[in-house]
Amino acid sequence: MRCEIVAIGTELLLGQIVDTNSSWIGEQLALIGIDSHFQVKVGDNFDRMEQTIRHALDRSDAVICCGGLGPTQDDITREVIAAIMGVELERDEAVVDKIRDMFESRGRVMVDNNRRQADIPMGASLIPQMPGTAPGLICPVSAIGDDKVIYAVPGVPHEMRTMMMGTILDDLRRRSGERAVIRSRVLRTWGDSESGLAERLAARIEHLDTLGNPTLAFQASGMEGIKVRITAKAADEAAAAAIIGAEEAVLRELIGDVIFGIDDQSMEVVVLDLLQQRGLTLAVAEGLTGGVLSARLSEVDHDLATFRGGRVGGNVDGNVDGEPGGELQSGADIAAEAAQNVRRDFRTDLGLAVIAAQAHDDQAPGTVFMQLAMEEAQHGGTVSLPGDRARFRNYAVINVLNFLRKILVDN
Amino acid sequence: MRCEIVAIGTELLLGQIVDTNSSWIGEQLALIGIDSHFQVKVGDNFDRMEQTIRHALDRSDAVICCGGLGPTQDDITREVIAAIMGVELERDEAVVDKIRDMFESRGRVMVDNNRRQADIPMGASLIPQMPGTAPGLICPVSAIGDDKVIYAVPGVPHEMRTMMMGTILDDLRRRSGERAVIRSRVLRTWGDSESGLAERLAARIEHLDTLGNPTLAFQASGMEGIKVRITAKAADEAAAAAIIGAEEAVLRELIGDVIFGIDDQSMEVVVLDLLQQRGLTLAVAEGLTGGVLSARLSEVDHDLATFRGGRVGGNVDGNVDGEPGGELQSGADIAAEAAQNVRRDFRTDLGLAVIAAQAHDDQAPGTVFMQLAMEEAQHGGTVSLPGDRARFRNYAVINVLNFLRKILVDN
Repeated sequence: MRCEIVAIGTELLLGQIVDTNSSWIGEQLALIGIDSHFQVKVGDNFDRMEQTIRHALDRSDAVICCGGLGPTQDDITREVIAAIMGVELERDEAVVDKIRDMFESRGRVMVDNNRRQADIPMGASLIPQMPGTAPGLICPVSAIGDDKVIYAVPGVPHEMRTMMMGTILDDLRRRSGERAVIRSRVLRTWGDSESGLAERLAARIEHLDTLGNPTLAFQASGMEGIKVRITAKAADEAAAAAIIGAEEAVLRELIGDVIFGIDDQSMEVVVLDLLQQRGLTLAVAEGLTGGVLSARLSEVDHDLATFRGGRVGGNVDGNVDGEPGGELQSGADIAAEAAQNVRRDFRTDLGLAVIAAQAHDDQAPGTVFMQLAMEEAQHGGTVSLPGDRARFRNYAVINVLNFLRKILVDN
Repeated sequence: MRCEIVAIGTELLLGQIVDTNSSWIGEQLALIGIDSHFQVKVGDNFDRMEQTIRHALDRSDAVICCGGLGPTQDDITREVIAAIMGVELERDEAVVDKIRDMFESRGRVMVDNNRRQADIPMGASLIPQMPGTAPGLICPVSAIGDDKVIYAVPGVPHEMRTMMMGTILDDLRRRSGERAVIRSRVLRTWGDSESGLAERLAARIEHLDTLGNPTLAFQASGMEGIKVRITAKAADEAAAAAIIGAEEAVLRELIGDVIFGIDDQSMEVVVLDLLQQRGLTLAVAEGLTGGVLSARLSEVDHDLATFRGGRVGGNVDGNVDGEPGGELQSGADIAAEAAQNVRRDFRTDLGLAVIAAQAHDDQAPGTVFMQLAMEEAQHGGTVSLPGDRARFRNYAVINVLNFLRKILVDN
């Protein structure tokens, strides 16, 4: 089964918007075993859209058109698909009512142009999910080939995703004749390289290769660590979940020390969950990370309920006085003191500090000191950062969060 | 003149990497007046690559192939282009030497596979810029049409950009028969809507429409504000610069109050420049922005030389004691006090605070208080944020930076 993706919009060609939709759809198709060999961007032009979609239908079984379903005169995906199907557009009054209700529930008035969004090619069916004012469409194209299909979804990412997850992926799998359920889970790791993980999992991967199900795949994700994806095929959801659960247990035996979360869990989400479960509050003292650690924690914990805040720069690095001379503190001592100070200052259970080595420290450049002050204990650690300045700060942040995570898990 | 873009790599189709290269190239082509009607992603597959590039050549004058020039067996762009040109590959020993030197200067040894990167289709010429180990190619395709051309550039963004700016854009313009120089400058604005700017510039735009040169274009860039791009066509660089300079002066008369920078200058770069010019240091107190303001300032001022640091959460919001009762401070008072405290605490010239309205404040939800403490003055302001929580923090950050910028410019 082959499915092409056509992203529609002149703004995509002009580089005003980067087409992330095709990438996301491509990833979802790969996960359910459907090939996507070509992905095309085309502008809001009738002839070129028609040519592109026809060409895609020639060489594939299905085409997903993304964009061009809005209310303006530029939005002509409906018209182009109707032409390819060889049918007329028909206004669906029930959809008009739905769009009007949507506007009214937001305290706004539907303008006449929005009625165009309810124009449906005859013979097409509506995608039940409709999170915005643009209905998604399933358009059979019997005129061209037996049982080929065009899907039309809006270019707004969350609307597109809702329709893909709610209807299109299942519909594609049904058409592909595949009866099995394919599900996957991502184990998120930090602290080992892709080749290191591959080595530790070599025997297991070899074993799974002989079984054929489930499968494992690695994905390097930069500052998000290495992802290990388990994909299972089974007769139904329950069986797929059982296979994935069993495989996760095996992998945790082998590489559990570097697994910090699953699927969409970021390191900061995991750390904040652990703190909350233990009823602990946290404050941070940031040297080199300059606020990035606080920003990432507060992005999850908006109300500063668990992460209470912190201090950036200033006497974190022990240099607020700017006085030369006197006794020089080591980076480790400065970090330890900063962790204690910020814990006391913010009246939290934990104080966490991340400080670059000082010039007078006898340390390799790029060494970072991490210190955690608790009521009855103090933990310290160091990490060496790569040379690349741009990645330096985010790398330090994920390392210090992982340092905290491990202490929380162990205690 | 029409130019298509073909992005090559199976990882693009699988969504492991988002294709930002095509977007960037599309933007550059538009700026020099070259149409790009289709942009295609295709995997590392000989037949499909050949089919895609041939199809692109059929309907365009030039094709830019991005990716597939690496040293591994997957990287077959050279072979595919040679097949389309109807020629053999020939190893260029001078390029082999260059690649070897590059490895040796980094203290590494060139492996044999890298020699493949020096295989050049006969009749192709090298792009002089070669920032990595993959040479870029200019490949005339006389076999297919008169004077059509394929450019091959690496998928590594900075290598691709260096070759585009250094050679390909000029070569395309020469081929298009265009002798004039086209240059542009972006004026970056904050504080007015796109329609507001359009209204204030309506008479000027009408006047320029009759002239035809220079031209103005608006580009909404979300949290980066509205960009106003001046594009000028002239006989040479100096004449283009003169036209742009004159137009910028006119626009500054009309909308100078909302222009904060040009081209790649972000709001934080502009603010830090203003502080440095005046020899002033800054500390910040962040409530709702949770560290994002500090992170953005320290991203530019790594060494915390001008931006000295700050405080996130905690008593910034006056609630460190958590004691109920007592007299409640207004948000404006808390912000004023926080600005003074952080200025004193960090011993800086300026203290800047950004605090959300308190529950007991008589203010609309989403009101944010901004306060700047200076040695002999205190400035205050408020801004109302949009409801969308995800955009809330970045919107507050750019507003408080703009608040500071205006005070610095006026003093």
